Amino acid sequence: MTKDLKKRIIEMTADDLEKVEAALVHHLNPNLELVREIASHLLFSGGKRLRPLLMIHSARLCGYSGGSEIEFSTIFEYLHAATLLHDDVVDKADTRRGKKTAHTQWPAPKVILTGDFLLALSLDLASRTQQPKIISVIAGITRDMSQGEINQLGKKGKIDLSETEYLDIIEKKTAVLIRGACQSGAILANTSKERQEALRQYGFHTGMAFQMADDLLDYSGTKEALGKAPGADIREGKLTLPVIHSLCHASPEDRTWMEKIITDTEFIPEQFDMFRDKLVRYKGIDYTRKCAQDHVKKATRCLDGFEEGPSKELLCMIAEYSIERKV
Amino acid sequence: MTKDLKKRIIEMTADDLEKVEAALVHHLNPNLELVREIASHLLFSGGKRLRPLLMIHSARLCGYSGGSEIEFSTIFEYLHAATLLHDDVVDKADTRRGKKTAHTQWPAPKVILTGDFLLALSLDLASRTQQPKIISVIAGITRDMSQGEINQLGKKGKIDLSETEYLDIIEKKTAVLIRGACQSGAILANTSKERQEALRQYGFHTGMAFQMADDLLDYSGTKEALGKAPGADIREGKLTLPVIHSLCHASPEDRTWMEKIITDTEFIPEQFDMFRDKLVRYKGIDYTRKCAQDHVKKATRCLDGFEEGPSKELLCMIAEYSIERKV
Repeated sequence: MTKDLKKRIIEMTADDLEKVEAALVHHLNPNLELVREIASHLLFSGGKRLRPLLMIHSARLCGYSGGSEIEFSTIFEYLHAATLLHDDVVDKADTRRGKKTAHTQWPAPKVILTGDFLLALSLDLASRTQQPKIISVIAGITRDMSQGEINQLGKKGKIDLSETEYLDIIEKKTAVLIRGACQSGAILANTSKERQEALRQYGFHTGMAFQMADDLLDYSGTKEALGKAPGADIREGKLTLPVIHSLCHASPEDRTWMEKIITDTEFIPEQFDMFRDKLVRYKGIDYTRKCAQDHVKKATRCLDGFEEGPSKELLCMIAEYSIERKV
Repeated sequence: MTKDLKKRIIEMTADDLEKVEAALVHHLNPNLELVREIASHLLFSGGKRLRPLLMIHSARLCGYSGGSEIEFSTIFEYLHAATLLHDDVVDKADTRRGKKTAHTQWPAPKVILTGDFLLALSLDLASRTQQPKIISVIAGITRDMSQGEINQLGKKGKIDLSETEYLDIIEKKTAVLIRGACQSGAILANTSKERQEALRQYGFHTGMAFQMADDLLDYSGTKEALGKAPGADIREGKLTLPVIHSLCHASPEDRTWMEKIITDTEFIPEQFDMFRDKLVRYKGIDYTRKCAQDHVKKATRCLDGFEEGPSKELLCMIAEYSIERKV
């Protein structure tokens, strides 16, 4: 079923994806060799191009036929790549998508500056839309994301992180960019305020579901599927919803034990398996899955007022896929 | 004379400067405590606010009276601060303006993210101008600056750096931002293409002169005046015009000796004095000063077609001050 969903999405978007890839290469090409190399290392390492696809089909769902949706959709992939480059330096992450991260291959300063360059590139493309409102949305995204990352950094290892704090973190980390991509597609199509808002909300809920599913995968995925060892969040001291919920409902003894595992600097694989069992026992896994499913439902409902057609079908499938995926 | 020039500029801009300071504080205020602290550390450490002043008076010289020039001028100070934060991390610089740099006080990741945030803030303000052309100028600035910094990083320690390569580096490092500030002022005033271009060129030449003077100060300034020990460029393996010109004209023996000093990892103060003497003997100092003066002349000439008045007078004085300053 999941495999079918993924296959279906890929079939429906094959043509767009090919054009998005070409556009991503095109805008990188006139630039410094080194920038291109570092940027390409991350950009062409198997990203799903979810953000560009959402922007493209939000625009089309609103009747856009101006022909620039592919070019402008790359804004959101470059922006995504820029934040990943900086985040990997900041988090000292070794692997992403099964590949060594850029800063393990090049000096961190060059990676930081390549991130700056990609941010500038997305901004440059944004200015070419000639739409102040899109630019304002993109400015808001970069502001929220950098603030969110600093905020998250300050809360690393915070053992009593609340669900509200967690929701704020994932909103800034993931949902604002996906929300902004959908909203920008709607603005590009020059659709009504109501439809802009509906697609903005669709993007928000899809983004929240996507990040919750991502946080779940860190406890349920395999190393092969994830491209990195599971348990990365706990090793980095990042509390996510499965853990927050379980800590709240654990017995005092289990809570103390879990807190010890979280704060321990040493990571023992057998203990990780036991830790995972606690997340099942105290329903942290179930609860997170339910929250993600609720967001998917809400996302889908945001599309109710739109005409049936391939773009609506695709957006519904992507929302569903966000929690069904294994990678 | 120089002191009079500085005094005169400060007198003429006291009112603007006060408002710029207030605006800089205002836009930082609703943000995360930590972001504000790190950003403030650099932003309120005695910057000259040259870029905002240039933007403000470029707008006024073109007859702007819309009342938003102070607010939008902060774009260029935030952008400047963002690049300084990243550059200091990248260059591992310890001091700036006589103060310890941010990344010696806070973890580098937080400083990087604060730089991202300031970039986002300037972009957010840019989008509020509702002028796609200003946004496009700002996008171009950030792109050029990040590319330039990566390029410079790749050329660190390059002993045969040419004058052309040097000019390209300082254009991207300094002149594009000052050029963009002046151009944006002209665009904000909705003036003719010719006047926009004239102010753009004025900014370019002022920026080039400013950076050449800066590079000279590293050989002629005192630690007290500079806020950091002179000779920083050579310690970091950065070849600037005084050195490039002198290397070209030195005797083979002196050239070999100078190259040794540049590539030596150990820095001996007495050798630095001798090195400085070579720059005088082989006219690297004189040549650089002359180049900077030429740029000031060209900058001033760009203003020929504009009406006399306080803004024109001020822009002329700033161009002159750019090479007369001791700090």
